[in-house]
Amino acid sequence: MNIRFKNARVLTMADGFNIMENAEVHVRGKKITYIGAADKKEDRTNHWDKTVDVKGNLLMPGFKDAHTHSAMTFLRTNADDMKLQDWLTKEVFPYEAKLTAEDIYYCTKLAVLEYLTSGITAICEMYFEPQAIAKATEESGMRCVQVSPLSGGDNVPQKIACLRDMYKKFNEGNPLTTCQIGLHAEYTCSKELLEETAKLVNELKVPFYAHMSETKSEVEGCIERYGMPPVEFADSIGLFNYGGAIFHGVHLNDKEIEILKKRGVSVVTNPASNAKLASGIAPITSLLSEGINIAIGTDGPASNNCLDMFREMFLTTALAKLREDDAAAVDANKVLYMATVGGAKALNLNDSDVLTAGKNADMIMIDLNQPNMRPFNNITKNIVYSGSKINVKMTMVNGKILYMDGKFNIGEDPEAIYRDVQNVIDSFKNGTR
Amino acid sequence: MNIRFKNARVLTMADGFNIMENAEVHVRGKKITYIGAADKKEDRTNHWDKTVDVKGNLLMPGFKDAHTHSAMTFLRTNADDMKLQDWLTKEVFPYEAKLTAEDIYYCTKLAVLEYLTSGITAICEMYFEPQAIAKATEESGMRCVQVSPLSGGDNVPQKIACLRDMYKKFNEGNPLTTCQIGLHAEYTCSKELLEETAKLVNELKVPFYAHMSETKSEVEGCIERYGMPPVEFADSIGLFNYGGAIFHGVHLNDKEIEILKKRGVSVVTNPASNAKLASGIAPITSLLSEGINIAIGTDGPASNNCLDMFREMFLTTALAKLREDDAAAVDANKVLYMATVGGAKALNLNDSDVLTAGKNADMIMIDLNQPNMRPFNNITKNIVYSGSKINVKMTMVNGKILYMDGKFNIGEDPEAIYRDVQNVIDSFKNGTR
Repeated sequence: MNIRFKNARVLTMADGFNIMENAEVHVRGKKITYIGAADKKEDRTNHWDKTVDVKGNLLMPGFKDAHTHSAMTFLRTNADDMKLQDWLTKEVFPYEAKLTAEDIYYCTKLAVLEYLTSGITAICEMYFEPQAIAKATEESGMRCVQVSPLSGGDNVPQKIACLRDMYKKFNEGNPLTTCQIGLHAEYTCSKELLEETAKLVNELKVPFYAHMSETKSEVEGCIERYGMPPVEFADSIGLFNYGGAIFHGVHLNDKEIEILKKRGVSVVTNPASNAKLASGIAPITSLLSEGINIAIGTDGPASNNCLDMFREMFLTTALAKLREDDAAAVDANKVLYMATVGGAKALNLNDSDVLTAGKNADMIMIDLNQPNMRPFNNITKNIVYSGSKINVKMTMVNGKILYMDGKFNIGEDPEAIYRDVQNVIDSFKNGTR
Repeated sequence: MNIRFKNARVLTMADGFNIMENAEVHVRGKKITYIGAADKKEDRTNHWDKTVDVKGNLLMPGFKDAHTHSAMTFLRTNADDMKLQDWLTKEVFPYEAKLTAEDIYYCTKLAVLEYLTSGITAICEMYFEPQAIAKATEESGMRCVQVSPLSGGDNVPQKIACLRDMYKKFNEGNPLTTCQIGLHAEYTCSKELLEETAKLVNELKVPFYAHMSETKSEVEGCIERYGMPPVEFADSIGLFNYGGAIFHGVHLNDKEIEILKKRGVSVVTNPASNAKLASGIAPITSLLSEGINIAIGTDGPASNNCLDMFREMFLTTALAKLREDDAAAVDANKVLYMATVGGAKALNLNDSDVLTAGKNADMIMIDLNQPNMRPFNNITKNIVYSGSKINVKMTMVNGKILYMDGKFNIGEDPEAIYRDVQNVIDSFKNGTR
């Protein structure tokens, strides 16, 4: 499809936080082909399948949700207001043990619907049954970076083979899906699995991704096991030789921050999840002052419970302000960068980071015609401090409009997805399996 | 208008957190007249101006925004990411000095639009020009409790006369507006004004409302001035003899919490504002354990910046969880109670607290047909942890539908309100006044 957007404000993110007015954006197939003033010649001589009058609303790059466990939608609200250990052992693990690949396919699709309502155009997914996940995201048209949630200590050679296969297969298949080498976490993996994964990372010369330094007890456990905290340990065995990202990064010491900087490792912050599970507040100000790339993730819907980048953006700065006792900490534009370009950088999605000709058309339209966006003093601050799902008028991924004016276009009726997911959790609860 | 809602889930809040299924709600004029199973006789024999098929969505009491400065919409994003003192002295005070009653009327209307998108059916307003505010809220159909922002030390007799007049006038006029006796804050009022107000409160036998214990420096200042912290001082001069509410209540010692309990004073928590201005996290768990009534407020749009009860609800529990280092702290239903019944209790809006026959029809419809509300494990937890403005399908105040399916019905075009408010801030910035 060739789609012409006219009468748009455009925040390309390629030019700081400047906003173009009365601009056009042209999308041909999967790519952006033009951004600028109305191009009369181009308009006359080219065929458009669709022209969208943006009516002064804002086009900007889609949000990148840099850490998710999408299929956990089935557990949403099933484990709220519980201590972390109870949450995991009484609710999450017993139910997860019963999940099938088909369940994961349905539950992932429900999450995709929600991402689209929040302007999220790419996710970094870590869950079981990556094939089922890929089927769900690819069918829906969602961009997805898969990272394996492998853990444990048995069958290490098979696990390494699995990581290698997954990496090759997903990076050579449907371009909507890519893959990065990763593991669940230091505290859930044997030393052998961690070390063999490090060998793989160094052989392939690729970045490494894992949960890291989410809770105090995780850090204390790592120090007990290896005499050093998680980031230092992971680096000591070579996992970060080609960069990567850590999910959470709440409890980090200065030496670890130095390592992240030196290795070019990104931190994916998950403020809602870290607050709801009482894990703590990440040291965003220190990471920023060291120039470390920061991305933002929602974490899974069982620990958040909302897949909403607006809430995460507000929390990223609001919690930093509380942590530092400084209302000037982490300004809005820094947060908007994390949610878009920072996310693309962390996930190696450099073709989807900003809006310029030649980039993938991963783009959203923000409805400025809502009371929470008025008056126009500073539009980017409004997005971070006042924005809400109510402001997402359109979500386009890879040149395809997947959501517009409250309607989904992912090839399946949302009601059918709602029913499928309800069946999953109901069958668990009523004991029919 | 007589309106029949059919096929509804109903959370009345009069029966714990139970949700009725396949229910009807009947509204006649300003009141709820029936809630229950479809009443065939009633349906046949009565005229309905309108029948709304709720299609299994949820009807519940509207949210009460128990602390606002609505007209500060004009300053939204104009003073973000600044230290509190700079925020006040460089941005807020100089602009406020130029505001006219007409400006306040326009800017309040913009806020009303936003409250409606978030299911807020009543506000507790504190700002200058109460007549202009009342004009804006009454014309729009919004319920509003006015509390004076009076401060200073001069003309005390005139100020007391003003409080007395305002109290009488608003409580005897349009029933959408009520009034409570209040002042801006201890730290902005002379001892004489505080003491004379206490006399008035005791003469009228009414509750007292004010900003209190928002920041550490405010508390330190009060101790310096009077040898005790704000709540203790206010109580010592008799301000709380008939209860009331304090706005913020972030920094409270045990003795003060004991006083609030003894006097039946509510605490209105403003978590987004307290985080964004780095004021701190209120001791919600301690207040709950003492049985103190808690309500929730957005504070003004210059310090939040969003007028959104969903964000406030999530923050109320998430910040308490962080503060107490306990993921089980302050469960979702407690928060939902604060945002509805707790608010009504704090503001003396007892006819608008729950949904039962005879109560005011201040009611909202939550769209459960959105991905963030699925699956149905626990609907009330979903509202608190996943809810968003996108889920507000209808906001009804006093029996009138003011917002439905994204359309406003407040007797004025939103575009005209947007223009009016833009003119206010633009004229300040371009120096035309």
